[in-house]
Amino acid sequence: MERIFISEIPSHVGKEVMVSGWVHVIRAQGSIAFLLVRDRSGLAQAVVLKSSGDGSLFELVKSLSVESVVSVTGKVKQEAQAPGGYEIEPIALTVLSKAAPELPIPVVVEKSGGETDITKRFDWRWLDLRRPEKLKIFQVWTALEQGFREQFAEEGFIQIYAPSFMNAPSESGTDVFEVKYFEKKAYLAQSPQFYKQMAMASGFEKVFMVGPVFRAEPSFTTRHMTEFTGWDFEMSYINSHHEVMDIEEKLLVAGFKKVNESTRLGVEVPSMPFPRLTMAEIKGKLKANGVPSEKEGDLSPDEERKICELIKEETGSDFVWVIDYPASVRAFYHMRHEDKPTLTKSFDLLYKGVEITTGAQREHRVEILEKQAQEKGI
Amino acid sequence: MERIFISEIPSHVGKEVMVSGWVHVIRAQGSIAFLLVRDRSGLAQAVVLKSSGDGSLFELVKSLSVESVVSVTGKVKQEAQAPGGYEIEPIALTVLSKAAPELPIPVVVEKSGGETDITKRFDWRWLDLRRPEKLKIFQVWTALEQGFREQFAEEGFIQIYAPSFMNAPSESGTDVFEVKYFEKKAYLAQSPQFYKQMAMASGFEKVFMVGPVFRAEPSFTTRHMTEFTGWDFEMSYINSHHEVMDIEEKLLVAGFKKVNESTRLGVEVPSMPFPRLTMAEIKGKLKANGVPSEKEGDLSPDEERKICELIKEETGSDFVWVIDYPASVRAFYHMRHEDKPTLTKSFDLLYKGVEITTGAQREHRVEILEKQAQEKGI
Repeated sequence: MERIFISEIPSHVGKEVMVSGWVHVIRAQGSIAFLLVRDRSGLAQAVVLKSSGDGSLFELVKSLSVESVVSVTGKVKQEAQAPGGYEIEPIALTVLSKAAPELPIPVVVEKSGGETDITKRFDWRWLDLRRPEKLKIFQVWTALEQGFREQFAEEGFIQIYAPSFMNAPSESGTDVFEVKYFEKKAYLAQSPQFYKQMAMASGFEKVFMVGPVFRAEPSFTTRHMTEFTGWDFEMSYINSHHEVMDIEEKLLVAGFKKVNESTRLGVEVPSMPFPRLTMAEIKGKLKANGVPSEKEGDLSPDEERKICELIKEETGSDFVWVIDYPASVRAFYHMRHEDKPTLTKSFDLLYKGVEITTGAQREHRVEILEKQAQEKGI
Repeated sequence: MERIFISEIPSHVGKEVMVSGWVHVIRAQGSIAFLLVRDRSGLAQAVVLKSSGDGSLFELVKSLSVESVVSVTGKVKQEAQAPGGYEIEPIALTVLSKAAPELPIPVVVEKSGGETDITKRFDWRWLDLRRPEKLKIFQVWTALEQGFREQFAEEGFIQIYAPSFMNAPSESGTDVFEVKYFEKKAYLAQSPQFYKQMAMASGFEKVFMVGPVFRAEPSFTTRHMTEFTGWDFEMSYINSHHEVMDIEEKLLVAGFKKVNESTRLGVEVPSMPFPRLTMAEIKGKLKANGVPSEKEGDLSPDEERKICELIKEETGSDFVWVIDYPASVRAFYHMRHEDKPTLTKSFDLLYKGVEITTGAQREHRVEILEKQAQEKGI
């Protein structure tokens, strides 16, 4: 018999179905046993009476350990009191894999406050991830990426896979992981930046890259990870950094839309354009609201949180572009404004208080690049 | 003025356009100069007469170095003798970036046999990739992956990102890269296998993963790379390994279709199902065709090439599934046939003479797994 997802049960009333999943909860009360089975799509209740058949199914259900894997075949009927409004009258039950009677961490937490310590949950990560709200994180991310990629395809971007192994550190000499590469040394990529730029020099015009980046930062904050998945893109022949921001807004909107379609979580899709404020405007706003400036021309984590709160109140937007960083805090290859040479054509994107993107129009004129590098003492 | 792609020129006859790209070839003959400009989409010819205007445009074009980046603004006219049938009469030309007069490797090879040595081409990879046939490789790969992903989405697969850092070697003790991880040691993932399996144990049911895998194999053949992008997927509740092969066939067909749509290269889309032959059948066929068997129950590179040739002749298929590998050459966790316990429910996929996939139905019954591990001396 073909297995169906639990979410499909409502369209099978009166018919025999097979569902497969985890034993979520068992409640045996004298002559009746309630079995809740959980799959990726939901929960199904099966009810077995002691009096049905020779009683062996009742005994089998009573003997199950929670989180075992079972297949239940039975007839679907409507039942207002069952979770979701349907119930299965089981005909057969197969135990595909038996769970130990004691679990190291609980999957079903019935009382609030029953959350296990995070370290222990990470030790038993595959049990922790059985909880439906954790699965949702992966479903959201899958849909978000799908939306990004559809937009990249629409805009004619080409995907590149830059290597993780590099023969020299890619961003700076520190914070890089060293690998023993046969008789030589290699380094793990901190960014695919040079490869994207090489693709521009090769005439690819528009590229994107998704992959792990490695940062050997010995920090233990929510803003630091030694390995994470980076999204990068690069475009040729732009007139200003605003064209790059336009594309990123489109990507985010496409991603959010896809999340809404796929998960039905009712996520709010951001509206374009997102607010774009110069660093000077932001510093002014923060000052007017009594937030001290920790560093000239740059934002501290606290300032990032505060400006997002202020812009959210003013405009309703969870996203804020910070533009026109001073040349003093940006890399030598950031292009500067013709009319304001102390300011760069650069941006960061903040989302709900955290920086999620850094970008700029790159300086492509060799003489100016050389001059700016010399200014920075490079 | 908004820049257009060179491929869009035919729809702008009689109008003024701007195209941007590389100086592909210049031919100046006395009073006329032909300039070929190349962008990602094609080649455009611009013709400048010495007599036009004050002659400065003619002098500028004559002075250009090939592979410089230029923007040309001009009027489009039909011209049967021009490449593609159209020509631009330039009004203005801007040099965005000037190339050195001598290139380390040529981009435009006009005579056959002018191909530079591969080592030197890799040293100047960004120039090498300017050749349109190299760009095509990346365009094909981008489309292929897009097709794969659309099929995964259609089948309800969830994407996971398994880490590259592991605290123990993932496949075997050898062939693994060691990383200095602060005061500890880490290893680069040889495969996301355990993480996919954990996702099954977490009830994700169907997952896929795309990312770099690392193999410290000190081999210098076309079948070995120390880093490559792996595609992995995993499914729960299958009845046999044939269901996994069915999905992979659908992925490949979707990928090939997308390549055809996006690149118009006229790639042949394979038809399903692909031929599925047992190892025993393949060994029989090879023997009948005089190909010696190098190892019982496994195929050498030469046997892989030969069986693909034979199947291509017989069926027209570039793909061949090899099924039913003997338990002796497969991992302990491969499920065995109930009726033929020396054979596994496993497969490899060969494509044009090279193995591109390995898979199997996994044994999930703990007692059998333990027995099979013991048999293998694990």
